[in-house]
Amino acid sequence: MLNRVRSAVAHLVSSGGAPPPRPKSPDLPNSTSAPPADPPQAPRSPPARAGSGSAAPARTVESRASFCRPTFLQLSPGGLRRADDHAGRAVQSPPDTGRRLPWSTGYAEVINSGKSRHNEDQACCEVVYVEGRRSVSGAPREPSRGQGLCFYYWGLFDGHAGGRAAEMASRLLHRHIREQLKDLVEILQDPSPPPLCLPSTPGAPGSSDSSHLVGPQSCWSSQKEVTHESLVVGAIENAFQFMDEQMARERHGHQVEGGCCALVVVYLLGKVYVANAGDSRAIIVRNGEIIPMSREFTPETERQRLQMLGFLKPELLGGEFTHLEFPRRVQPKELGQRMLYRDQNMTGWAYKKIELEDLRFPLVCGEGKKARMMATIGVTRGLGDHNLRVCSSTLPIKPFLSSFPEVRVYDLTQYEHCPDDVLVLGTDGLWDVTSDCEVAATVDRVLSAYEPNDPSRYTALAQALVLGARGTPRDRGWRLPNNKLGSGDDISVFVIPLGGPGSYS
Amino acid sequence: MLNRVRSAVAHLVSSGGAPPPRPKSPDLPNSTSAPPADPPQAPRSPPARAGSGSAAPARTVESRASFCRPTFLQLSPGGLRRADDHAGRAVQSPPDTGRRLPWSTGYAEVINSGKSRHNEDQACCEVVYVEGRRSVSGAPREPSRGQGLCFYYWGLFDGHAGGRAAEMASRLLHRHIREQLKDLVEILQDPSPPPLCLPSTPGAPGSSDSSHLVGPQSCWSSQKEVTHESLVVGAIENAFQFMDEQMARERHGHQVEGGCCALVVVYLLGKVYVANAGDSRAIIVRNGEIIPMSREFTPETERQRLQMLGFLKPELLGGEFTHLEFPRRVQPKELGQRMLYRDQNMTGWAYKKIELEDLRFPLVCGEGKKARMMATIGVTRGLGDHNLRVCSSTLPIKPFLSSFPEVRVYDLTQYEHCPDDVLVLGTDGLWDVTSDCEVAATVDRVLSAYEPNDPSRYTALAQALVLGARGTPRDRGWRLPNNKLGSGDDISVFVIPLGGPGSYS
Repeated sequence: MLNRVRSAVAHLVSSGGAPPPRPKSPDLPNSTSAPPADPPQAPRSPPARAGSGSAAPARTVESRASFCRPTFLQLSPGGLRRADDHAGRAVQSPPDTGRRLPWSTGYAEVINSGKSRHNEDQACCEVVYVEGRRSVSGAPREPSRGQGLCFYYWGLFDGHAGGRAAEMASRLLHRHIREQLKDLVEILQDPSPPPLCLPSTPGAPGSSDSSHLVGPQSCWSSQKEVTHESLVVGAIENAFQFMDEQMARERHGHQVEGGCCALVVVYLLGKVYVANAGDSRAIIVRNGEIIPMSREFTPETERQRLQMLGFLKPELLGGEFTHLEFPRRVQPKELGQRMLYRDQNMTGWAYKKIELEDLRFPLVCGEGKKARMMATIGVTRGLGDHNLRVCSSTLPIKPFLSSFPEVRVYDLTQYEHCPDDVLVLGTDGLWDVTSDCEVAATVDRVLSAYEPNDPSRYTALAQALVLGARGTPRDRGWRLPNNKLGSGDDISVFVIPLGGPGSYS
Repeated sequence: MLNRVRSAVAHLVSSGGAPPPRPKSPDLPNSTSAPPADPPQAPRSPPARAGSGSAAPARTVESRASFCRPTFLQLSPGGLRRADDHAGRAVQSPPDTGRRLPWSTGYAEVINSGKSRHNEDQACCEVVYVEGRRSVSGAPREPSRGQGLCFYYWGLFDGHAGGRAAEMASRLLHRHIREQLKDLVEILQDPSPPPLCLPSTPGAPGSSDSSHLVGPQSCWSSQKEVTHESLVVGAIENAFQFMDEQMARERHGHQVEGGCCALVVVYLLGKVYVANAGDSRAIIVRNGEIIPMSREFTPETERQRLQMLGFLKPELLGGEFTHLEFPRRVQPKELGQRMLYRDQNMTGWAYKKIELEDLRFPLVCGEGKKARMMATIGVTRGLGDHNLRVCSSTLPIKPFLSSFPEVRVYDLTQYEHCPDDVLVLGTDGLWDVTSDCEVAATVDRVLSAYEPNDPSRYTALAQALVLGARGTPRDRGWRLPNNKLGSGDDISVFVIPLGGPGSYS
């Protein structure tokens, strides 16, 4: 994530505003990249999200001072050194021998050209088994009754101000998702609509009917249909939140400094859930057609949310920022003149008389890759960043950042997919220099050069995408064939086949 | 607007929270439906929107106790009685003799079947001339220098809790738009990009360059391109805001009780601006294709905005409401059980343990036409409603309502339109029982029965749309051909031709 946080590392302070760190649970294992068969210790009852103060799965994080790459790359010490070499920028992929990634997923990555010491992207690809916590009826689960659920999981994490947050998220976010799904194992496998209410005590009947409603108003006598799909969406949304809260708790003892964008895919019961918080991107290329599966969250795309928050909670601006947007910085000599502005409600522009408080720094400024919130950060959703402060200030930035993803759902069963239909995930290193159409063209070009049943074609495609965004060293820079600069950022790409060999296995 | 405000009239109180009414300006004319050639007295300098305390155009509103319909209907006293007859529900249109509406616009309306005493919809169609306030350079305008601007204007206003707000908006909103455009007359006619900054004193040079920027950050050294189009959007957005503020000022003396949805169209310099605040709808039907030009703002579509406001400003909930959404009303006996919920960040659902505060009324509840905010109102944007309180409470609802429209722009010059291409505006009385596709089919059916150059075809189309939504009296109700109930609401429709005779005249 090139320059996403302006000198943020230099301005990290670790004081103020943080919840006290939770005590470590001595019985929990170190959360290294253990296989998902190793379940975290779950709390006895599901966490209550609002106002109850109950906790996310308490889990400690081993301090990891050393550089690491995704375990599925199976890098030797020498391979790790090559992956960490800014000069060579060798493209890394899982070895062609041995166990493939699920669905024959393709993956490739390359380190940045020097903007940070290590590759701050991280990735994860797992098959995760979810065992139900207990039966919906409240009765203890019998081993023979009810099957658990499996979900397939892919995650890309683009770190900033250090790689720790991305590394932690790559190890733990899918476990938080598993944790959230544990309550839903039986419900999701039951074709009847989800119960609206669950009993608190085992064996007690739940009240899912609406026959005893209070209140005379018709809007209260109705009851909403809640789909299974929306339960999975809610589970993923809350898992992001719990992951972020865990980072907040552990930021002191374990130096989870910095933050990361998170783009994850969950395949469960026939549907693909794409959850994005940040400026990574996912698209489906299906029969040559492009289907966007995410949108980016930046100071530009989230301007009105940020301005509204600054307007409603002016104390968060610390007297240093104005929630109004101006097309450029207002100068003191322009006091009393009229300048174009936009407030939190406007999409158009109008003139206003410049007053003293308009001389404050704008909450949102700049355009495109230069857009910044509080002159500091270029991405407005993600995980971590609990210690991030405004440059030369103690003003915290975190209140403006959201850890909630947008989740889009794609029903795999509604279309017969061919082996050339793929879901492409990339960090902004890819998308900064590659359009959706160029990706679709590369999909067509590379896949058509391989047999449809050749499982290595998706890795070849991921490599081609990464190489195409990186370019080759020429004229004192990494350059694309058109001589424009390639991406100097970390670049990571998953190619997930939606049909053909290996799928749904 | 059928049942949009639940018994709101009975719960109107006029105390608390209102800004003091501004003194009347004795030199201002009564703002009856005078033609736009009668300009309101404009303040000497353009209004500063944020924090300056300067005012919208000060204008008094004549108290209008009597029922009225749009002047372009040219209703005689007898015609007015027929238009007000709930039993007959005769469709009203401008007379086929005499002056047509601009662009040969078609219009039709019908009163409700008895839900309110009068038709609470209002409409306006005008050609508005905008004279520049002064030259951009600050020099006084010379009569010979610079032309004014004309815009074409159509507005539909769907009132609730009385027809006063809709009636006032139909008389004045286009004047507020004119007022906002006065500063832009020269700028919009100058092909160069709009100046970012205007001088405060006549003759002083503006500073629209960015060569003397302060601040070392790259996001501050950039300057945004602002388009002419976005200035018009900003002018319309602020005009809505000023209209709403005027209603707030005049609500006491002149009984501007209730509120209204506003859907307006402005045609200016080749572009059509469609601004919507409420649940009316605009679509373009072009060569049979449907192009949505608005979206509806209801407790369902604005759930997250409303919840976020309640979460950030809990005092607005008065201890009576919870910002959380539940799929149905929580019952006291369910305390301690787990129920599905959504907060302001979630689109999915998850279970939470029910606590005492979850037993409060939900800020948002119900679905479809039964959806309500604070159990009171079914529409979340519009003008007025400054006195609206929660049922059996003094809690004001206005803080949750937004008077800002969403503005969509359609460039008429980008496509060669034929006489059958139309922009259809309708209040919810139309859309409650008519789909976009059914409207498109009616457009095709009716227009093909007329010669392309017959200017009466658009009124015939508007009448057909209104009749199709009203139905015919049968089996103790107004029924559609499929025997379903027709709309018992007020129904109003504009059909604006985008090509062919009369256009752009």
